[in-house]
Amino acid sequence: GDVLGPALQTSTRATGSIDILSIVVQMIQMGDEGHNRNRAGTLMLLKEWLPSLITSGLASSDVSDVVSFVSGNDHFFLNLVMPACKLMTRAGNGVAGSTVVTTMARNGTDFGIQVSGCGEQWFTGPAQLADGLYLGSYGPADANPDIGDSAITETAGIGGFAMATAPAIVRFVGGTVPDAIATTRRMYDICVGENPRWALPIMDFRGTPTGIDATTVLRTGSLPQINTGMAGKVAGLGQIGAGLVTPPMECFVAAIDALAAAAPR
Amino acid sequence: GDVLGPALQTSTRATGSIDILSIVVQMIQMGDEGHNRNRAGTLMLLKEWLPSLITSGLASSDVSDVVSFVSGNDHFFLNLVMPACKLMTRAGNGVAGSTVVTTMARNGTDFGIQVSGCGEQWFTGPAQLADGLYLGSYGPADANPDIGDSAITETAGIGGFAMATAPAIVRFVGGTVPDAIATTRRMYDICVGENPRWALPIMDFRGTPTGIDATTVLRTGSLPQINTGMAGKVAGLGQIGAGLVTPPMECFVAAIDALAAAAPR
Repeated sequence: GDVLGPALQTSTRATGSIDILSIVVQMIQMGDEGHNRNRAGTLMLLKEWLPSLITSGLASSDVSDVVSFVSGNDHFFLNLVMPACKLMTRAGNGVAGSTVVTTMARNGTDFGIQVSGCGEQWFTGPAQLADGLYLGSYGPADANPDIGDSAITETAGIGGFAMATAPAIVRFVGGTVPDAIATTRRMYDICVGENPRWALPIMDFRGTPTGIDATTVLRTGSLPQINTGMAGKVAGLGQIGAGLVTPPMECFVAAIDALAAAAPR
Repeated sequence: GDVLGPALQTSTRATGSIDILSIVVQMIQMGDEGHNRNRAGTLMLLKEWLPSLITSGLASSDVSDVVSFVSGNDHFFLNLVMPACKLMTRAGNGVAGSTVVTTMARNGTDFGIQVSGCGEQWFTGPAQLADGLYLGSYGPADANPDIGDSAITETAGIGGFAMATAPAIVRFVGGTVPDAIATTRRMYDICVGENPRWALPIMDFRGTPTGIDATTVLRTGSLPQINTGMAGKVAGLGQIGAGLVTPPMECFVAAIDALAAAAPR
């Protein structure tokens, strides 16, 4: 804390602007889906910081500690993917009548979504338990229901939506490569568009499925697929596993109800 | 030269042994085929060096220069992939009667192969011109015939043999993802085995095609696919492009002739 924060502040200011979305472009072509896997992204971020970090005047042992900490946590880049996705999706919020989902978030009790046409209004339902793999001797009894802001990655079209590009994750939780591709295909069916800049090599460079349409979720019954970490039920336990989860359908029903009520007659 | 070499020597000695083959395992799951694409591999190698490089006592400006040089060349890790592949394939050389290819190399005039059953004997044919993309304003008239030792990567089962994992390369030279997969499938047909440690995600984690069988090359007429850099014809020009090339069939004909002549009757 006393070392990492100031070191990264100094390094970031000396580096100048770092193009986070460009790193996402590249990581998606390197087996990262940007939610449960950020290995290439973390190394590419570190690469941007390194020259100014090394010449920052910090003690070399501190620089070495910072580098080891950042490169030793494959999820480090997620800390920057999330706000980047938040800025993207927030830019699409507040379009009158739009059924596009602009936020998905969970607080461990409720799962909430926002749709563009309803601005800051939340539509909630009960947070689900993720299905996945537990670390060490942890099991379902230790798991808290779905929690955290990281589903903003799926809201922006990566994470579970880009599962096809990160088959290593699916294999980890017992699935196969065709399962990963099937997940991404299913997400195209509930999205209004594709992001050509975030191209999935395994899908012949088709863009990531982008912009969940709440109406289509209702019509098809197909829920957004979220890759997530699992948190322990007891405070302080931290992450106890990783897996797959979906929002409850209630969120989408409530959002479409509100949009319908607000529609001009 | 005065900075890089000594810095990497110091850093390597202080780091202790670095598991190059383990980095190859990971890079193959990150879009690198280990010959024309080594982006993830280069960053993972740098990650191993960093802690001891930073605390080596070198001037921070030198450390920064070394880091920028290594991370600024996506091919840097190829310098270590090649000797690793050479050690692997050399271990398979000298098995009596074996038709497995243990070396492929080119000197700009001839393409030479060695087969396990004939030890150090070379079987040669004319080096071909690669088909690919030229840098800047260079064109076919500037290109030297196929040159270099790097086809040892294909001999060990990566490079063009792992094309399926690096569709970005195929796209670069005008092909499609199905072309990349078709190339790897064709290589399974001329190889005696698969390397389960080097698993290709896009092939449902099937191992890389490994151990070219000279007899099968002759029987099928299917030549090993090599991804390669193209060198300029004029000395000092360096790399002028990158593309695809194959060995001449003559090498395989000559090798099988020699093996047949040596076979007990």
